Amino acid sequence: MAKVTLLINCKDTSGIIAAITNFFNDRNGNIVYIDQYVDTENGIFFMRLENEFSERFDIAEIRAGFETHIAEKYNMNWKIYAEERILKMAVFVSKYDHCLYDILGRYKAGELGVEIPFILSNHAELEPIAKAFEIPFYHVPVTKATKAEAEQKQLALLKEFEVDFIVLARYMQIISDELIAEFPNNIINIHHSFLPAFAGAKPYHSAYKRGVKIIGATCHYVTAELDAGPIIEQDIARISHSHSIKDLILKGRDLEKIVFSRGIKLHIQRKTMVFNNKTVIFT
Amino acid sequence: MAKVTLLINCKDTSGIIAAITNFFNDRNGNIVYIDQYVDTENGIFFMRLENEFSERFDIAEIRAGFETHIAEKYNMNWKIYAEERILKMAVFVSKYDHCLYDILGRYKAGELGVEIPFILSNHAELEPIAKAFEIPFYHVPVTKATKAEAEQKQLALLKEFEVDFIVLARYMQIISDELIAEFPNNIINIHHSFLPAFAGAKPYHSAYKRGVKIIGATCHYVTAELDAGPIIEQDIARISHSHSIKDLILKGRDLEKIVFSRGIKLHIQRKTMVFNNKTVIFT
Amino acid sequence: MAKVTLLINCKDTSGIIAAITNFFNDRNGNIVYIDQYVDTENGIFFMRLENEFSERFDIAEIRAGFETHIAEKYNMNWKIYAEERILKMAVFVSKYDHCLYDILGRYKAGELGVEIPFILSNHAELEPIAKAFEIPFYHVPVTKATKAEAEQKQLALLKEFEVDFIVLARYMQIISDELIAEFPNNIINIHHSFLPAFAGAKPYHSAYKRGVKIIGATCHYVTAELDAGPIIEQDIARISHSHSIKDLILKGRDLEKIVFSRGIKLHIQRKTMVFNNKTVIFT
Amino acid sequence: MAKVTLLINCKDTSGIIAAITNFFNDRNGNIVYIDQYVDTENGIFFMRLENEFSERFDIAEIRAGFETHIAEKYNMNWKIYAEERILKMAVFVSKYDHCLYDILGRYKAGELGVEIPFILSNHAELEPIAKAFEIPFYHVPVTKATKAEAEQKQLALLKEFEVDFIVLARYMQIISDELIAEFPNNIINIHHSFLPAFAGAKPYHSAYKRGVKIIGATCHYVTAELDAGPIIEQDIARISHSHSIKDLILKGRDLEKIVFSRGIKLHIQRKTMVFNNKTVIFT
Repeated sequence: MAKVTLLINCKDTSGIIAAITNFFNDRNGNIVYIDQYVDTENGIFFMRLENEFSERFDIAEIRAGFETHIAEKYNMNWKIYAEERILKMAVFVSKYDHCLYDILGRYKAGELGVEIPFILSNHAELEPIAKAFEIPFYHVPVTKATKAEAEQKQLALLKEFEVDFIVLARYMQIISDELIAEFPNNIINIHHSFLPAFAGAKPYHSAYKRGVKIIGATCHYVTAELDAGPIIEQDIARISHSHSIKDLILKGRDLEKIVFSRGIKLHIQRKTMVFNNKTVIFT
Repeated sequence: MAKVTLLINCKDTSGIIAAITNFFNDRNGNIVYIDQYVDTENGIFFMRLENEFSERFDIAEIRAGFETHIAEKYNMNWKIYAEERILKMAVFVSKYDHCLYDILGRYKAGELGVEIPFILSNHAELEPIAKAFEIPFYHVPVTKATKAEAEQKQLALLKEFEVDFIVLARYMQIISDELIAEFPNNIINIHHSFLPAFAGAKPYHSAYKRGVKIIGATCHYVTAELDAGPIIEQDIARISHSHSIKDLILKGRDLEKIVFSRGIKLHIQRKTMVFNNKTVIFT
Repeated sequence: MAKVTLLINCKDTSGIIAAITNFFNDRNGNIVYIDQYVDTENGIFFMRLENEFSERFDIAEIRAGFETHIAEKYNMNWKIYAEERILKMAVFVSKYDHCLYDILGRYKAGELGVEIPFILSNHAELEPIAKAFEIPFYHVPVTKATKAEAEQKQLALLKEFEVDFIVLARYMQIISDELIAEFPNNIINIHHSFLPAFAGAKPYHSAYKRGVKIIGATCHYVTAELDAGPIIEQDIARISHSHSIKDLILKGRDLEKIVFSRGIKLHIQRKTMVFNNKTVIFT
Repeated sequence: MAKVTLLINCKDTSGIIAAITNFFNDRNGNIVYIDQYVDTENGIFFMRLENEFSERFDIAEIRAGFETHIAEKYNMNWKIYAEERILKMAVFVSKYDHCLYDILGRYKAGELGVEIPFILSNHAELEPIAKAFEIPFYHVPVTKATKAEAEQKQLALLKEFEVDFIVLARYMQIISDELIAEFPNNIINIHHSFLPAFAGAKPYHSAYKRGVKIIGATCHYVTAELDAGPIIEQDIARISHSHSIKDLILKGRDLEKIVFSRGIKLHIQRKTMVFNNKTVIFT
């Protein structure tokens, strides 16, 4: 049995669901999952659908047929994924190791279902972790003088290893517009605050200063505007006046790990769709 | 524009989604919401669907057509609801007033979208609340000697007022099998523990004794076995060693109110379906 | 048995705890609760202490003695509360009724342990609720032209009824500096966002626009700067892309009620202390 | 500056706090933290206190003095810890690696402040992880026939490495009474349910069957009765009907890791005290 996953969005109109379900029915498919949502404010229809074929199927024919019979008619944005291919995920880090340990632990435990072709860092400190987990490590320092050159090196590595998406595991450098343009909605960051509160640097310090009773973490796609990309996942933890900034940082680590890994998994499972700088998260 | 809501379950097989979407498409309907789920363990397909008709439609024809063309073929359990009718909800209470205040506050604020034909209690204490909210109050005392008679009185009232479902807002009496049989999956209870932990009487006392760090509340449909019916909703609150039983009771009140009202709303919106003593909760 | 509650803060130095415990010991008191915290950043010591006297005691002597023997030496800010007096809490509302219903339900259920001398509103709509709960209601309209006059009327009522503190149950008017000065750290507001995110008007609309996955509510003391006062309590609820602004408003109501009532209770129990625009919340 | 931490419990009576604060004051100590709690049901007083000495101090004299002047008078259970010694924590595992990865990641990141002298397993599978983290690994198989012998080997290792406490990171063997007796309240287990619900084997299967809407994890001290020891920490995660048993297991892993590590940290920081099979958790 083989499965294809369809994601679409288009202007909302009547008959879309019937058209799509008939498309798969006509090809002897069996729809095993359907989740749909209408953004009534903007009049946009979103859908994620999983279809199983009991026999061999021709993915190229499916895609061509869908384009011709459905997508053109409804002027859709769409993607059809066949399950066989395993995504390649590059991990960018700086000096903090907690998110890296968490991701690699999940990776080794088989939770993620991706390949990690390499870990890249602007610092050398975390190389031993990459070694312990037997993953190639590239040290690409970034200074004002070398920034452009470093980015070219990053792009070359991403291309060489045919990377599908990048996760920034507390990578402390601004991502260039060129890199963002090459990987639209395919660069995932973890920010250590409950966005939009405390965007930018040192959010735990700001949270401490404001005296909030709850801290948060936000996993989002990277866009040109810092910490303003589409939010994939957020979560929070309770704190009190008795927690120092150091305590917040420590408590926040667990939050960051959990929220980051949830966001990454949603991306891997093709359960996210971006529209108007917001995400639709399918169940 | 008028909407119908369809809920079904049946043996899982291919083509169900296409058949149903075509059914509505053929009648010039527009499916605006679809949520489906397959219980792979038991091979059961569940679906909730909302369909809008832009023109007048004949609900009797829809139901008859669905039965003939779809339900029989797939041997479905199904219900089609037309939106116009407002449900009638009876509220049973004893002496605790917090859940009653909460429900009536939501009712007056227009949150529930139901009619409350009456409040019934085995005690007289809460009558002034019913009065303040201008809802008829029936005092039906229950003693061992009068239990059978009291139940007949309850049934008569439920029938007279054409009640659709009953909510037990901390009603401290066992519901008879006859009443349960008259309202299958239509009696909603709030239990003040995280079921299946601490079923039965005095759960806060048991939670205190065991030294748990979290207490809970559970909203469930009433079945013949005490506190063992299908769970609709649960939530929890953190506690510590420093909380006395009295503190647990007080903290639990907020939990009970929230969990109870969420469960009631899911029921009112036809978002619950019961199978094998478990609920499917549609989004 | 009678209890006094002591709250202090002062420059941190050694010997404070011993000095205070000896003070009560010398007067045949029994310390039944002590919670202390040191703000190491600013070098400030905070403490809340409950002491029981088995015999009659002279509260005036206790206060004078504490001032002479302890407070002067350590240059303390301090308050000693004797338990007997019940606080008077004024409730200000506008048109939203959910927080009002919640507070009054708790009040009637005996949860709060305060007296509510009156409800005040700039609109007439909620008067029937005040009537149903048998609490005096004052309609004090506020327009640009009448603002100053309205405030004098408010102040007169607060004085006449000897109000201790004010709760703003979704009162949609800016509180004047004069009123704030009369009730420093004694005006409690509920803001319908996770501050500092979405301060100001229409936070649910902003949350929807930004596409956050979690909404919040914040209970805080009112200061001259809008929505920037010391935070007493916060909590959150998960949302998804599928929630409309209307859904957020509805979900937020439960949050507002819970967070507001928790903040109010902490204030009533003398468990809050404000320093540097932040709260210390004692357990 | 050096710190000692005191933990006590004793029959509640007046004057305890004053006596203890004077004890440290007389020795030129400075109490920097105090947390106390009275179990009013059983009349037991609990306290945790941290005291800093600005000069060198004689820990043996402190202990002897405390025994003579305080502990005997009040018939106390007490412990005084001097900060210098780093605890030795043995990790027992079977085949599941997620809790092990999590603990070792935290260990390497410096979060725990313990030494891990060895990892012990009844299976060989996880040895490569121990190697990657450069921690000795002992494979001590347990079969019915070799159970007694295996336990002697465990005890010998624990003695040889002067282990202070043991954490069971999903160790799938019953701990013998002898081992429990050697390490009273020093063996920490993570159970993958919200105890007391679903004690024993396969809790995720039971949770699935019952149709709960929330799963949990419980960190507790091991006692002779299975899954019935004093609870240190619990937390929960929301699930829905759509989660398979496999999903619950996966979601549960994050819960287990978080709850386990929180419990372990509380133990390391001497913030737990056991009485009547319940824990007092100091802040």
